[in-house]
Amino acid sequence: MTHEFDFIAWIRSQQKKSRLVSLPAGDDLAVLKWDKDDLLLVGNDQVLDGVHFDSEKHSPRDIGRKVMNRNLSDCAAMACLPAAAVVTLALPRGTPMASAQELYLGIKDAAAPYYCAIVGGDTASWDGKLVATVSIIGRSADVTPVTRSGAKVGDGIYVTGPLGGSILGRHMTFEPRVFLSRDIAKRKRAHAMIDLSDGLSRDLKHICDGSKVGAILDASLIPIHDDARQLARQTGKSPLEHALNDGEDYELLFTGPQPLPKEFIRIGQITEQPAMLIETDGRQQHLEPHGWEHQL
Amino acid sequence: MTHEFDFIAWIRSQQKKSRLVSLPAGDDLAVLKWDKDDLLLVGNDQVLDGVHFDSEKHSPRDIGRKVMNRNLSDCAAMACLPAAAVVTLALPRGTPMASAQELYLGIKDAAAPYYCAIVGGDTASWDGKLVATVSIIGRSADVTPVTRSGAKVGDGIYVTGPLGGSILGRHMTFEPRVFLSRDIAKRKRAHAMIDLSDGLSRDLKHICDGSKVGAILDASLIPIHDDARQLARQTGKSPLEHALNDGEDYELLFTGPQPLPKEFIRIGQITEQPAMLIETDGRQQHLEPHGWEHQL
Repeated sequence: MTHEFDFIAWIRSQQKKSRLVSLPAGDDLAVLKWDKDDLLLVGNDQVLDGVHFDSEKHSPRDIGRKVMNRNLSDCAAMACLPAAAVVTLALPRGTPMASAQELYLGIKDAAAPYYCAIVGGDTASWDGKLVATVSIIGRSADVTPVTRSGAKVGDGIYVTGPLGGSILGRHMTFEPRVFLSRDIAKRKRAHAMIDLSDGLSRDLKHICDGSKVGAILDASLIPIHDDARQLARQTGKSPLEHALNDGEDYELLFTGPQPLPKEFIRIGQITEQPAMLIETDGRQQHLEPHGWEHQL
Repeated sequence: MTHEFDFIAWIRSQQKKSRLVSLPAGDDLAVLKWDKDDLLLVGNDQVLDGVHFDSEKHSPRDIGRKVMNRNLSDCAAMACLPAAAVVTLALPRGTPMASAQELYLGIKDAAAPYYCAIVGGDTASWDGKLVATVSIIGRSADVTPVTRSGAKVGDGIYVTGPLGGSILGRHMTFEPRVFLSRDIAKRKRAHAMIDLSDGLSRDLKHICDGSKVGAILDASLIPIHDDARQLARQTGKSPLEHALNDGEDYELLFTGPQPLPKEFIRIGQITEQPAMLIETDGRQQHLEPHGWEHQL
């Protein structure tokens, strides 16, 4: 049996001051000294047992990494640098101290490459299942944030890697594309950007809606992950359907000038007509946004 | 049955730009333009069904108000102004849209007096019970943040209202002491401050530990709420025990110069010897921190 305050004391022992953090976790709020030239970006993402992970199957370290990486992927989507994060944990009663620590260390592991400070947290235990929530503060750091609403007619549509079938494992182990996204934005390669969390068809819809444009995809150009092929053998859906709709790829989807270097996979083009189409063997069809959506 | 994206679209319709918020919720992250003279304070608090509220008994509007008010009370503890917040909801599957909206409106209601913008959110549904989490960003706004670590030997110990028995209802309906706290800090009346969430005995311990001092309380001076007396008739504990240990009072506990105006209730004094004592009828006893603590 672990006491909440023992865990909190342990978390505090993991904290330190920095140029940004003048008062780390341990008081009612942490105190940061914000650089006047930086825009401040803020958001949050949670993971729920049975929805975003399975506590029977995934280790606390991996669960911690995932919730942090989801937030880091939001930073990538906006081309900002992760600066600080706060963590909220609802732990099932009886959670061993070692598991709670592993969860926290997973969060810290994921944050470390970006020198992103974990500056606070709230922990409680309950009769429910594990919930881990991270709120992230990012900074623009000399790069104008890229939104969903900047796509221009005639832009190419690009992705940064193969898609589909992430449920076979990649949804727990992905690497957020923070540094790649910063590089894309610095070189003015992206007019609009999003991370592929809901699924290509739905996330492209977010860009089209945000930018008041349409899109046409070329089915033959969409990069299909081996996981999508493997999953298709079990589900009866096509690998392309998995690539379009599975979600949790956490690659970047962006629109920008054409052409770009070959490392960016062009899958289609932004159109004036506000509809989403997909062309297969010369035949155009409407593309329905079918990605991840929770039913309340 | 509500769709997540309908709820998110509705939340977005509630948002607006301001001097602080250059891009409200609706993208991967919100974008704020931070004032260069402001320190940034950040923290988070959650409420869990069965721990911090009872969904059979409390309305979604009241639950929303509580989670926001807990965060606003953290701002009060530091004497900062609430500036922006992000909301994370884990909704039980089948939650009607109207209930989800009520929850959000409770959060917005509580934030409104402070012009605190709700700038983002993450919503998912699951087979578990309701979890609502708010992360808050505060700004110093010309007042140096008051921490737990500034108490000085000889300081008076003060509270801002009667304590105990909040479980009878006040834990859902309290008003965070943001404006009062700002006034206290502006007039340099507080060397150390905390909001009474864990309970007087435990929160005083947080100040003593943080400031490396001790404290002696005068039992006869501790203001006992009528709720504590009423609860004592059911529990067999004394009203004083309830005032010392119940928690969720959300009054301010602070240490500062003596004397202060009578509106601040002096309950004891900070001592050099790092122990907590309570004096009853001229007899001193050790005061054990017995407030709210979750067992993991």
